[in-house]
Amino acid sequence: MSRKAVALVSGGMDSATALAIATEEGGEVYGLSIDYGQRNRLEIETAKNICRQFRVKEHRIIKIDLQQFGQSALTSSIPVPKDRETQNTETDIPITYVPARNTIFLSYALAWAEVLEAEKIFIGVNAVDYSGYPDCRPEYIEAFQRMADLATKASVGGEIRIEIRAPLLHMTKAEIIRTGMEKWVDFSMTHSCYETQTPGSPCGHCDSCRLRQEGFREVGLEDPLPYPD
Amino acid sequence: MSRKAVALVSGGMDSATALAIATEEGGEVYGLSIDYGQRNRLEIETAKNICRQFRVKEHRIIKIDLQQFGQSALTSSIPVPKDRETQNTETDIPITYVPARNTIFLSYALAWAEVLEAEKIFIGVNAVDYSGYPDCRPEYIEAFQRMADLATKASVGGEIRIEIRAPLLHMTKAEIIRTGMEKWVDFSMTHSCYETQTPGSPCGHCDSCRLRQEGFREVGLEDPLPYPD
Repeated sequence: MSRKAVALVSGGMDSATALAIATEEGGEVYGLSIDYGQRNRLEIETAKNICRQFRVKEHRIIKIDLQQFGQSALTSSIPVPKDRETQNTETDIPITYVPARNTIFLSYALAWAEVLEAEKIFIGVNAVDYSGYPDCRPEYIEAFQRMADLATKASVGGEIRIEIRAPLLHMTKAEIIRTGMEKWVDFSMTHSCYETQTPGSPCGHCDSCRLRQEGFREVGLEDPLPYPD
Repeated sequence: MSRKAVALVSGGMDSATALAIATEEGGEVYGLSIDYGQRNRLEIETAKNICRQFRVKEHRIIKIDLQQFGQSALTSSIPVPKDRETQNTETDIPITYVPARNTIFLSYALAWAEVLEAEKIFIGVNAVDYSGYPDCRPEYIEAFQRMADLATKASVGGEIRIEIRAPLLHMTKAEIIRTGMEKWVDFSMTHSCYETQTPGSPCGHCDSCRLRQEGFREVGLEDPLPYPD
């Protein structure tokens, strides 16, 4: 039987790069996207294209309702912050934080990995240029791994351990871009903007657009996306 | 501000007893039920009645699609086992196991608790008379707690710790029944059967019916539900 991996694919640069790494490691890769009622449906369309490009064995989109719990600019109608100063990530949690998002996403990935008998779950979280989300920290990923080690059928029989792989955890945005380029990620296809509703037209001002632009500047490359002047 | 707790309510005896304990501890209790496409929609209706009886502040039902991942007698059309011998819980996982179920349920509870600024999450898992589910073991609950301590906004600011409470973890079924009785759980209202589609008509032969009947026998009480002869 071929080795299997589940990769969480959001449509952004980071998860596309994580998917590229999963593909390079070989075996069968299964793409999983979560449609969590985000204001930006573009992400799901982008995730489909990226999964197609990397020829995943199968791409599943799970629709879940995080809007029910509200309180995030990414799931409700609160305005996305623009052009703000870099925040103190020790204490400031941005309004774009979705409660327990990565915990819910990884839980679904764990369920699917268990059914598939997959050995790895890839997630594109990143703690360096991170936006202040608690569930992007290395200690969080380690704790999820320990929990996953006890949560599944495999953990009782002991035959398969499902490994949570976060290969971008310690990379800067520039390193992610360089890695993605080496592994044939087409960044013109990826979507980062929290704000826009138009494919290929990022706002250029939200946290996510700004981090992305800084990353490309640092690498000395032009971001393939057209930003407004 | 009143203290708050989120209680996962499935409609079964265990979660009803856990809800009764949560209510007794005071503060505002919020009921959360997960409609995971289980074959038995009765559970959700029962959960509604139980939440009404215990006057929860609010009862939310989240619809999620675990059927997509399949492979359990509780979410698909695989027959539920009947009248089988007690299994070796060290190695046998029953076919009624739903992949990563408690992980997904607790993740949703964590998301809601975070938004509500609740301090506790109640779950009625039980490791004594347990049916061989890995995610009902004490070490699993401890690992989820460690992960939750790192996953949320509260864990960065440090002002609120969300405590995972599993008050039935070390109780036998008989102890759960005794505790529930003391705290006014109406067991004629609770639903345990994996098989039946008719309210108040358990099959009497699935694992869940048999554990329940054994529990009542041990306490020396009559199960209020009518079983077939």
